[in-house]
Amino acid sequence: MEKYDVISIGGGSGGCAAAIRSADLGKKSVIIEKRNKDGIGGTCINRGCITAKSLLKSADTYSSMKNCKKFGVSAENVTFDLKAIVKKKNSLVKNIRFGLQNFILKSRGIEIIQGEGRCIDNHIVEVETNEGTIRLYGESIVLAAGSEPAEIPAFNIDHKSIVTSDDMLELKELPKSALVVGGGAIGIEFAVFMASLEVDVTMVEMLPNIAATLRDEEMSLIVEQVLEKKGIRVITGTGISSLVAEGDGISAELDSGDCIKADMALISIGRKLNTDSLGIETLGLEMEKGRIKVDGHMRTSVGNVYAVGDIVRGPQLSHKAQREGVVAAEAIAGMDTVMDYDVVPWAIFSKPEIAAVGLSVSEAGERGIETMVGFLPFLANEKANTMQEIEGGVKIVADKSDKTIIGAQIVGAEASILIGELALAVKNRVSMEELSNTIHAHPTLSECIMEASKNGLGKAFHRSAKLNKKRR
Amino acid sequence: MEKYDVISIGGGSGGCAAAIRSADLGKKSVIIEKRNKDGIGGTCINRGCITAKSLLKSADTYSSMKNCKKFGVSAENVTFDLKAIVKKKNSLVKNIRFGLQNFILKSRGIEIIQGEGRCIDNHIVEVETNEGTIRLYGESIVLAAGSEPAEIPAFNIDHKSIVTSDDMLELKELPKSALVVGGGAIGIEFAVFMASLEVDVTMVEMLPNIAATLRDEEMSLIVEQVLEKKGIRVITGTGISSLVAEGDGISAELDSGDCIKADMALISIGRKLNTDSLGIETLGLEMEKGRIKVDGHMRTSVGNVYAVGDIVRGPQLSHKAQREGVVAAEAIAGMDTVMDYDVVPWAIFSKPEIAAVGLSVSEAGERGIETMVGFLPFLANEKANTMQEIEGGVKIVADKSDKTIIGAQIVGAEASILIGELALAVKNRVSMEELSNTIHAHPTLSECIMEASKNGLGKAFHRSAKLNKKRR
Repeated sequence: MEKYDVISIGGGSGGCAAAIRSADLGKKSVIIEKRNKDGIGGTCINRGCITAKSLLKSADTYSSMKNCKKFGVSAENVTFDLKAIVKKKNSLVKNIRFGLQNFILKSRGIEIIQGEGRCIDNHIVEVETNEGTIRLYGESIVLAAGSEPAEIPAFNIDHKSIVTSDDMLELKELPKSALVVGGGAIGIEFAVFMASLEVDVTMVEMLPNIAATLRDEEMSLIVEQVLEKKGIRVITGTGISSLVAEGDGISAELDSGDCIKADMALISIGRKLNTDSLGIETLGLEMEKGRIKVDGHMRTSVGNVYAVGDIVRGPQLSHKAQREGVVAAEAIAGMDTVMDYDVVPWAIFSKPEIAAVGLSVSEAGERGIETMVGFLPFLANEKANTMQEIEGGVKIVADKSDKTIIGAQIVGAEASILIGELALAVKNRVSMEELSNTIHAHPTLSECIMEASKNGLGKAFHRSAKLNKKRR
Repeated sequence: MEKYDVISIGGGSGGCAAAIRSADLGKKSVIIEKRNKDGIGGTCINRGCITAKSLLKSADTYSSMKNCKKFGVSAENVTFDLKAIVKKKNSLVKNIRFGLQNFILKSRGIEIIQGEGRCIDNHIVEVETNEGTIRLYGESIVLAAGSEPAEIPAFNIDHKSIVTSDDMLELKELPKSALVVGGGAIGIEFAVFMASLEVDVTMVEMLPNIAATLRDEEMSLIVEQVLEKKGIRVITGTGISSLVAEGDGISAELDSGDCIKADMALISIGRKLNTDSLGIETLGLEMEKGRIKVDGHMRTSVGNVYAVGDIVRGPQLSHKAQREGVVAAEAIAGMDTVMDYDVVPWAIFSKPEIAAVGLSVSEAGERGIETMVGFLPFLANEKANTMQEIEGGVKIVADKSDKTIIGAQIVGAEASILIGELALAVKNRVSMEELSNTIHAHPTLSECIMEASKNGLGKAFHRSAKLNKKRR
């Protein structure tokens, strides 16, 4: 039986991160990945982040070209080729996966075994490979099996007219109209993808707001306006009582009594955790709310078994899983790194983008923190005007007692990049004063951040003095 | 004689900032602006940052559309209309100026007087207005007269075939070929503007490198490669011995002996300071290297007279002038704010962009600081691959003794935004460890920053272990 220092079960963001960091710390690492050709890289590379961003880039290119006249440029017969868009996405995924396999994993001597892995005890992992069952011995084991789109029986998913995000990646043709069930990250990204390519999209969200993870109603309403401006009909605060394939399309009945007919429905409400075949019961791992319970070092209730990614607490995000993988690897190597769930930025790659980090005003309130808020609309930013992308705004939340920045929410151009600076601010306990006194290059979108913090302090240039006072 | 607390001579970035902050601190402020219709907002809004970015956005739109096939999109007869591009730029400038005049200045009760202002003594400013000469009394005076393109006699600038950046803003038609003299920010931006619109561009720079303000040869060479890939011929390390208009174009002889003929030449080497008519001699202000000498509060050698912007030390940048204006206003109001010249980020809005903040390795060396360096090529970033903008890289410079980040240089997609996070890091003395432990959203360009700092610490995922070792 082959012996390893660290066995990662799952070759996605968390499992790879644990293996890479372990290898760099001198450990003999192996990754067990159940999927075949499209396995390594997990959901993120193969069926999530990267794929969606590739599709969105194409859709945005098309949409921008349709609106090029405002920049003094013109073109005739602007068209898109869905087949080419999907092909480009596939080749991108292949390249990134190749880079991961060869330049990142192989170059470190990390072995990859294809097959489903299951813990027999806290050291022995049994793997069902194509060539039969093998057993491996691991000093430590990192469970990183990830998740898949939830197949909710009530929604009659047939992978033809009622589909999941996985199905969206291999669309042969675009529907003329689509119902998107769920207004979270996946729903918003695919709604924008389709609407940019002139599909008539209706989004239904059961919660009172879409992009609910913003935990800020004002910002969620901006998202709603932005989507509606793109032609997406947004219906919130109502569930779906029935959804069936009907003729060439679908028919949905809402709790509100309304009926929606469309060519297709995308179900984007939650993901199912891949916890069934890991051997959790054999190990007797403690669970919490359906996920594997871990401590700050990603250690489960069984000392040498760790768990990371979607199957543990926290948001289902690649970078969160990556960080957890690093934390687990460092814990295995005897280091004292602790996972910090308070500073996990996230982004939705709609156009404009949506992003947040740390606490919103209402989350801070739940923790009993009195807040001060700074806000700047992109409309007041010169660079945004130059790009003619003036929708949205930056909201910065600080602890009123010492002005330390504790969170931020952004809807607007390049929000996914801008949130990086605010994550650094939250992580390093930068105050609104310090942020507002840091010179930002002009004319850049980053100035929105500086000006929002100045607004919070009543010092912003970019809105009338009156508005400043109102906000204060 | 009307009395004011603060008189700003010059209505550009520095003068406006001083007036705005003064007004917010309860001071009666006035701005004296010598130009007529295109005055307020100074070079930045009317003849610099904003105008160039508008032209570049149009050129980039055209260029991207020409290359849309890689995203599965196609179009026929992609063309641009220079007249429409210039018109769009003019309307953008008008809107931004309107916003500044009304929502920012007027709403605060800041008066604007049109005419040339000159100090008679350290309290009295004489203004030559259209209606005659008037005098104003100021408790404090802020000199903020800015600069203009240098008209170097040897280059025979005729504003027809041999032009300055001001002339570029009102081009009636594009040349087929152009010589750009000077490889700094202005030269690079206009070279990229023209090359994107298919002008055959040659750039000549006397220094050994273009984008020399990077103070990093490796990064300057990346810029050079990037420009050459866009079809711009870059010649460095040679001056121009003669430049004359000839026939319908120009003829230039280089110190190297080579001769260049083109339809047009753009002279972009330095700017002339508007210090002649301010009354500097009357006041007896101390000067240093041709600029007005100021202390950390922007105070000149005459106690109640301040100077900000291009006419004092430091780089000629709008945001640097804005910050100086704020510092001066706060000093006038009795606050103890000090200008920090060590953290002035800057950006060149080429495609891809160029940006830097703080110290480069060589600058740190000059100060006797031993450095450690982290680098990540955009090629290794998933988002950059998704956008197919994989040129360039992020370099982070830290003090080796405590790993504090002291500077960064970026060539690549959205460098102008990314540099914001690094400015915050330098300003708040964040260490490479802290930066690398701050989770960045995936897949974003911001991850380049995290990975570059991890690379500096030998912990990067995104390059093979071998390359990490090489860099360490």
